[in-house]
Amino acid sequence: MTERITIALDVMGGDHGMSVVLPAAVRVLSKRNDLDLLLVGDQERIRQELAGLGQTDNERLSIQHASQFVEMDEPASHALRHKKDSSMRVAINLVKEGAAQGCVSAGNTGALMSTARFVLKTLPGIDRPAICTALPNRSSHTWVLDLGANIDSSSEHLLQFAVMGSELATAVDGNNQPRVGLLNIGEEEIKGNETVKQAAVLLGDSPLNYIGFVEGDDIFSGAVEVVVCDGFVGNIALKSVEGVAGLISHFIKREFTRNLLTKMAALVALPVLKAFRKQIDPRRYNGASLLGLRGTVVKSHGGTDELGFANAIEVAAQAVKQQVPERISSRLQGILAERQTS
Amino acid sequence: MTERITIALDVMGGDHGMSVVLPAAVRVLSKRNDLDLLLVGDQERIRQELAGLGQTDNERLSIQHASQFVEMDEPASHALRHKKDSSMRVAINLVKEGAAQGCVSAGNTGALMSTARFVLKTLPGIDRPAICTALPNRSSHTWVLDLGANIDSSSEHLLQFAVMGSELATAVDGNNQPRVGLLNIGEEEIKGNETVKQAAVLLGDSPLNYIGFVEGDDIFSGAVEVVVCDGFVGNIALKSVEGVAGLISHFIKREFTRNLLTKMAALVALPVLKAFRKQIDPRRYNGASLLGLRGTVVKSHGGTDELGFANAIEVAAQAVKQQVPERISSRLQGILAERQTS
Repeated sequence: MTERITIALDVMGGDHGMSVVLPAAVRVLSKRNDLDLLLVGDQERIRQELAGLGQTDNERLSIQHASQFVEMDEPASHALRHKKDSSMRVAINLVKEGAAQGCVSAGNTGALMSTARFVLKTLPGIDRPAICTALPNRSSHTWVLDLGANIDSSSEHLLQFAVMGSELATAVDGNNQPRVGLLNIGEEEIKGNETVKQAAVLLGDSPLNYIGFVEGDDIFSGAVEVVVCDGFVGNIALKSVEGVAGLISHFIKREFTRNLLTKMAALVALPVLKAFRKQIDPRRYNGASLLGLRGTVVKSHGGTDELGFANAIEVAAQAVKQQVPERISSRLQGILAERQTS
Repeated sequence: MTERITIALDVMGGDHGMSVVLPAAVRVLSKRNDLDLLLVGDQERIRQELAGLGQTDNERLSIQHASQFVEMDEPASHALRHKKDSSMRVAINLVKEGAAQGCVSAGNTGALMSTARFVLKTLPGIDRPAICTALPNRSSHTWVLDLGANIDSSSEHLLQFAVMGSELATAVDGNNQPRVGLLNIGEEEIKGNETVKQAAVLLGDSPLNYIGFVEGDDIFSGAVEVVVCDGFVGNIALKSVEGVAGLISHFIKREFTRNLLTKMAALVALPVLKAFRKQIDPRRYNGASLLGLRGTVVKSHGGTDELGFANAIEVAAQAVKQQVPERISSRLQGILAERQTS
């Protein structure tokens, strides 16, 4: 018999709240039998919405009331102090208490990170949690971290990120020796700042499958399975990539709708364009893991739709099933012990 | 009568050397009447190649012999010390001596930057040169700097980059008040490192049209005309963007060549796809300016073709014609004087 997984969902978070989260929940349940979901938010409104979806009697959906919610632009410190009964906080509390093994929120990243860190605490040996997501490459995907939880990361932090990313890649993809690259610039004169150079030494001495420096384009080349960087750099790279992908879509659309002839060409090309779009559909990559915590927390993009949020739930379920926090902890303990004895 | 411009070309630089540079030179001359070109490299080989192109008697093409050339992977310090008669160095010397007003090289960036800085020196008030290029946005283009000449830039350096980028935008695009954004991350808890925060104060106090922090996707949104960042961050963002653009092209191509039906769709869609590709053709954006030097130096992508290198020559000619170094110097002096009196 499969072990059951329970995931708590912050139903009030994100740009669209429960109108996206609840249909996504129903969608995932219909695909996975090992999953139960705890819907955290305004009990009355959730009940109404579930009735509308014909899900009043679904035993795998439970409601946990929360009287508050965190605004998308609310400072994290304010949420931490004044929103102790927010849907986000209650969902994280459920993980802490063991009522759920993981939670998903599309709420604001700063508040989610601060609250998760405050409630769940970091794993032993981890100084700071990191945000990690998969991005598509030619053959599969590349895990990239940190994407914005930390700035001014030390070389030791970069090593911790590398451990976390490797364990996630191993757990999710079944790759026992994922290749790890350290994000750097290739200019001859400079070859990276001091922190990156020191991190290269730490990574080289570690049992990780560290293959050396990589450049920005290697995120998409498939040269490595894990790319490690400081959160300032990673966040800017991620947003830049989202920006250019949006620009390219805009140009494709504009050219295909320019006149009657191009519109006819679009009709012919439609199945091909659809297949192409699926490859880089951001919804398929939605769900960033907050790694390094004593529990599974997944951040969904705030503006995503049902399909995207459903994917974030899958990411959380997968992390729980594969015991990602436990793996990270055990791997890091091994590395630290090794270092002390050598 | 238009004033004549002379640009020196490092004929030996780049992955393809003179087989790309010489046809590009001929192409630009046929389009611009105000331009003369100095071809720097192995005299004998240039003569042969020009003969092959039917350009033996073109009076607007002169040859300047150089007995050495800088390898693409040669350390900058080695080139600086041991390649005093390299095509790259001689081209820069010609600018220093006034025989040319600008030069273009597709040679290695580190060596080009070091040699240009050593020979030409920086403008008064500029601590470090920066690399700047235009990237496409929805309506036009965005100037981004620094793209890899500097790491660990101080807030004062970021201010200097902002002055340089603004003056380039004004000179090339005729926009007298280009909007300047400072690249940062948007996470609530963090909002940038100390350097970026300090730079925001300096920029806010300056007469530049500073509009605040921007995120990576704003490089492509058209929200600002100039994006300022440290070279480590800028280089990684640029390479990441190149990487994802390459991945997207790869997926489009793969989907359109999947089977007979999709290949037929590709035939129908071909004119549209061509028009689209033109919008993001990297050759149209080839030619990065090394700003902050006492002279115009433009770096071409090492692997570009004739069309791309021709564009880099145009970028140099434009910078010379618009007196970009003089403008930067004068604007910066104004800002520094203003600061001293206030």
